[in-house]
Amino acid sequence: MRNLAILGSTGSIGRSALAVVDEHPARLRVVSLAAGENADLLAEQAARYRPQLLAMATAGAAARLRDHIGTAVPVAEGAEGLVAAATHPDVDLVLCASAGTAGLEAALAAIEAGKAIALANKEILVMAGEVVTAAAARCGVPILPVDSEHNAIHQCLHGRPRGEIRRLVLTASGGPFRTHSREAMRAVTPAQALDHPTWRMGRKITIDSATLMNKGLEVIEARWLFDVAADRIDVVVHPQSVVHSMVELTDGSVMAQLGVTDMRLPIQYACSYPDRWETSIPSLDLTRLGQLAFEAPDHERFPCLALAYRVLREGGTAPVVLNAANEVAVAAFLAGDLPFMGIPEVIAHTLDAHETGPAASLQEVRAADAWAREWAAAFARGVELRG
Amino acid sequence: MRNLAILGSTGSIGRSALAVVDEHPARLRVVSLAAGENADLLAEQAARYRPQLLAMATAGAAARLRDHIGTAVPVAEGAEGLVAAATHPDVDLVLCASAGTAGLEAALAAIEAGKAIALANKEILVMAGEVVTAAAARCGVPILPVDSEHNAIHQCLHGRPRGEIRRLVLTASGGPFRTHSREAMRAVTPAQALDHPTWRMGRKITIDSATLMNKGLEVIEARWLFDVAADRIDVVVHPQSVVHSMVELTDGSVMAQLGVTDMRLPIQYACSYPDRWETSIPSLDLTRLGQLAFEAPDHERFPCLALAYRVLREGGTAPVVLNAANEVAVAAFLAGDLPFMGIPEVIAHTLDAHETGPAASLQEVRAADAWAREWAAAFARGVELRG
Repeated sequence: MRNLAILGSTGSIGRSALAVVDEHPARLRVVSLAAGENADLLAEQAARYRPQLLAMATAGAAARLRDHIGTAVPVAEGAEGLVAAATHPDVDLVLCASAGTAGLEAALAAIEAGKAIALANKEILVMAGEVVTAAAARCGVPILPVDSEHNAIHQCLHGRPRGEIRRLVLTASGGPFRTHSREAMRAVTPAQALDHPTWRMGRKITIDSATLMNKGLEVIEARWLFDVAADRIDVVVHPQSVVHSMVELTDGSVMAQLGVTDMRLPIQYACSYPDRWETSIPSLDLTRLGQLAFEAPDHERFPCLALAYRVLREGGTAPVVLNAANEVAVAAFLAGDLPFMGIPEVIAHTLDAHETGPAASLQEVRAADAWAREWAAAFARGVELRG
Repeated sequence: MRNLAILGSTGSIGRSALAVVDEHPARLRVVSLAAGENADLLAEQAARYRPQLLAMATAGAAARLRDHIGTAVPVAEGAEGLVAAATHPDVDLVLCASAGTAGLEAALAAIEAGKAIALANKEILVMAGEVVTAAAARCGVPILPVDSEHNAIHQCLHGRPRGEIRRLVLTASGGPFRTHSREAMRAVTPAQALDHPTWRMGRKITIDSATLMNKGLEVIEARWLFDVAADRIDVVVHPQSVVHSMVELTDGSVMAQLGVTDMRLPIQYACSYPDRWETSIPSLDLTRLGQLAFEAPDHERFPCLALAYRVLREGGTAPVVLNAANEVAVAAFLAGDLPFMGIPEVIAHTLDAHETGPAASLQEVRAADAWAREWAAAFARGVELRG
């Protein structure tokens, strides 16, 4: 029996995680659930999974939740509430799936409390890869990747020594604008960008998929998860999203993990690891798919990918700035205040204005994050005026 | 330092194995070399690799070899010579790559002598899977597959427990007649059948690739190597031969091994296992390939594949009969004495006439083999008369 904390239980990943719990009630037990603002859904989840602790991002949402469920289960709130959900004494494994940067402190607290981490919130390693991996190493805590690509690489490596890795190859669907001209991309609307061809996900990550920033963040995440330098991490566009990622080994052999596009698969593997459990998820039928395509990414139409490699070269606070500027720019785009191709522009301007420093402590990370949000917002307004 | 016996050193696999030795002179040493009739090439190899023992299939070939090299290195001959090469006291690893059924006794002798086996001669397991795997288990000797497909599965499994296997998926190039009509296949000449689209191999195995019997033999081989029932071994046609094979695990995840089509890769892995060594073999570039295609095999145009599943269901001596009848039929086809589509016909007739018995001893295997060769030859003459 594995005892779970699910941080972000009302989001796309969180709901898939609960579907995995549904299929394995004798193996997985929900100890705590944390969500942002969606009190209605968290109340439903609480009634069904009977956790010992609930947490909501704000006092208002917590109050709405208490209105629903009464006093049967304690409801914590805010950043402290998220930490309480992550560090509940009965929890073995914390699924970090809260959107954005909110989950970083909770993840660190969970690591310090000796909990295993199933990591679905990539911003945690993008912002604080050095801090988080150092803490995990010190506390002897595994970080199990839930992102389909990193989960695939984790499966491909499967105990192979680091010295056998020649290259990691992250696959990218290419997003909805893979075949768009540069001109067509300038006219992209939020509705178009939210229509992802292969994966159903939250809004922020869907926009990141459309700009390929999601893949850029994954390159940064892979650098920390697998301790591999950026120049040995490649991205290949693979529109069918069937090959979830690959590892090239020192003898030229390539191991790949394939499967249907269903997030329950990597979530379950993170929960079952090092075992595997039967599922009702259908088998992959390659003969029905017929063709798998692969192409190099176009860095000109998708400058976000090059920006990710740039911040890995610069190191320190540069990835923090990239991540914060991207969050600001994506929010501005979704609000209709920034054109689609303004997203990489805002990030590049913010990086240009930033003086990279060390990111070895949470204080340094937070300061760079705050600085970048302010500057990116200013640049976004500027770009909007020009746009 | 690993000390090698190479049985079949003048054939395609043997020469690739020596190319692997060339690249790793500090890791691999050639102790003994055995060949069939090609005394000229074995003399060259002896001069270069300075083995301690040579062996040739016949007294005549051994005499020609002695003419070349004098008395510097002992030259053994016949079946005993092959056994002597396989069991030389200094040998750690025996590469079984002699064509056809000749290497079975030598492989068994090597196993009894405690040598690790790198298996490239698939007839050994097709004929005597029960005998050979029982001996290997008893002697605690690993059988490392060299066939590209089984080597791929071995890499995909990489220490994963048997209970995690849902399905093995062997890929098949489909051979040169993948898109031929049934009528066009009736008119196929030996020259056409010898022109394989992706792999350069010996004549017998190239014909087996054209009929898909090679894949059928591989299904039987996989059954013994990985102890998986035939109904959990699938074949998928994949013309590019880039995905060398796959394993579907219990959670629906599929692990695949990919690489360039170069036999040095699986040979080296069998030599380096459980380690991996750097090579000069080029990396796989999926973006240059662009597309990978997958389709179901056509059992009507390629009846040899269905025959292989049939003998696995029948068990006992049935695979021995399949293998022997196929060797006879392929030889008749290459001699111009049997039409291409006569090959499965001869095999099916021979199987129909055979009464399946146990194949738990070498005597039983040999008797079924001899019986099948006689009947298949008779059927081949009959088919030729009708053809």
